Amino acid sequence: MLFKFLPKEFNFFDLFDKQVDYAVDAAVYFKELVSKGAVDKAALQKMEEIEHQGDEVSHDIFEHLNKTFITPFDREDIHALAKELDNITDMINTIASRLVVYKLTSVDKNLIEFASVINESVNAVAYAVKGLRNLKNSKAIQESCVEINRLENVGDAMRDAMLAEVFENSKDPITVIKLKEIYQDAETVLDICEDVTHVVGAILLKQA
Amino acid sequence: MLFKFLPKEFNFFDLFDKQVDYAVDAAVYFKELVSKGAVDKAALQKMEEIEHQGDEVSHDIFEHLNKTFITPFDREDIHALAKELDNITDMINTIASRLVVYKLTSVDKNLIEFASVINESVNAVAYAVKGLRNLKNSKAIQESCVEINRLENVGDAMRDAMLAEVFENSKDPITVIKLKEIYQDAETVLDICEDVTHVVGAILLKQA
Amino acid sequence: MLFKFLPKEFNFFDLFDKQVDYAVDAAVYFKELVSKGAVDKAALQKMEEIEHQGDEVSHDIFEHLNKTFITPFDREDIHALAKELDNITDMINTIASRLVVYKLTSVDKNLIEFASVINESVNAVAYAVKGLRNLKNSKAIQESCVEINRLENVGDAMRDAMLAEVFENSKDPITVIKLKEIYQDAETVLDICEDVTHVVGAILLKQA
Repeated sequence: MLFKFLPKEFNFFDLFDKQVDYAVDAAVYFKELVSKGAVDKAALQKMEEIEHQGDEVSHDIFEHLNKTFITPFDREDIHALAKELDNITDMINTIASRLVVYKLTSVDKNLIEFASVINESVNAVAYAVKGLRNLKNSKAIQESCVEINRLENVGDAMRDAMLAEVFENSKDPITVIKLKEIYQDAETVLDICEDVTHVVGAILLKQA
Repeated sequence: MLFKFLPKEFNFFDLFDKQVDYAVDAAVYFKELVSKGAVDKAALQKMEEIEHQGDEVSHDIFEHLNKTFITPFDREDIHALAKELDNITDMINTIASRLVVYKLTSVDKNLIEFASVINESVNAVAYAVKGLRNLKNSKAIQESCVEINRLENVGDAMRDAMLAEVFENSKDPITVIKLKEIYQDAETVLDICEDVTHVVGAILLKQA
Repeated sequence: MLFKFLPKEFNFFDLFDKQVDYAVDAAVYFKELVSKGAVDKAALQKMEEIEHQGDEVSHDIFEHLNKTFITPFDREDIHALAKELDNITDMINTIASRLVVYKLTSVDKNLIEFASVINESVNAVAYAVKGLRNLKNSKAIQESCVEINRLENVGDAMRDAMLAEVFENSKDPITVIKLKEIYQDAETVLDICEDVTHVVGAILLKQA
């Protein structure tokens, strides 16, 4: 690789701020959708736009990463962070899309509950990621990460209780198939948020 | 790591050509199988042989990567490319195997449609990967990547339409379980092809 | 990254020994649980404790990795090894948890068979990982890796035969949904053990 024509530095923080804002948008809009209980094709299109915009930012980050010589933290951590933030928005969009495909258009109180926890977790992710700009914030960032981990445990228990309920009460196997996937997907969003804390933790540790 | 006994250079391009040819073989044979609608154990064995041969090449690549000091592009990109190409052949083989296990032996027009798109996408992957040998091809490589991304979107829409149809029309939950997994797997092949474009994109960008 | 305050060396082998012992504990306890056929909440709690302790060790490894300048083998390989060993324990714990959620509390001879193969494979993983401390063991390590790969193939065939049986014999779709996931998860444990052999293989090759 020839470095001579590469820009020496680039402000990755601005792009991460933008990317995590799209993740928050997706989480907020997801909560709105499931609260109304009717994800139609128009609503889905708006979600796909959010996902698409987040995707563009992650491509921007990867492109600058490959062209920039000096980075604010390890290249592999920048790559992993952009990837995980992209995964959050992707997964939320996937769930919305499945709700349409599976015609799950009635209000599901379990999903509303999950959407709230996802919202809290993605907000904490946003707080942690935006904090990386100034590492004097490291204590507050770490507290966000603890909160994200707590919410992942909450999500695990929620999913298990909901699956047990579905298997117990639902007599229709088709409904079981659909809800099982949706609840597992919802929990996956919280897993991805937890993956972000691993990257953030590595960044903090290396800068300590 | 002691570099002194390591060969300085190795021609990775030859191995990538071989590996992507096995992916093409798998895609072509898969299309043939689903068009006949009868994947029997003998047919499966032939597919497994293709997968096994592709696997051997990827091991060759990893081995040379660990023993070679000078590589034509970043080590991590070589590793990722070999891994993703292996994933394509693996996933196609997995689907063929599931067709046998699930006794899905009648002709399924949806699967034929998917097999065609997979064929097109894997051909474009082969074109892009073989192009890496001479980066004067970069424009044509990029066009292949655009095509692969287009086909991934086509696959997403196909899978969603097929799942909606299955959930709408199939009264038998067991059939739903089987077809849902098969169609999602088929789309996963296209996702992996898209993953290849990310690696190829990074390689092009770093060499630009 | 400033290296001046970083400890120069750290004994990663001790932590890997501890981590792989937790994986063995999980595999042994899993076999005990499925042999009794009654995973209750108390039993699950003990499994979760094993998983939690393994998790702590992997965090220790990641933390030391980020703070240590000289490592016994490539940093990326240390990271990958700790990650895969963690995945083994995680996946076993996930299966145990699903058995409770799905109320699969009767003895399932298939699962006992799988638990035995998992035990053998995790034991071979422990042998290989503990061998890394002294690379004079490399031949014995490689033999363990061959055995792990053999057991993964055994697991593939077992899962396929069990799924074919479930689809053939079970008239209840809900049971199919549950058992299908459990058997696929069980095979995933063997896949993860095989992933360990890839990391171990890379380590051996680089040190050769």
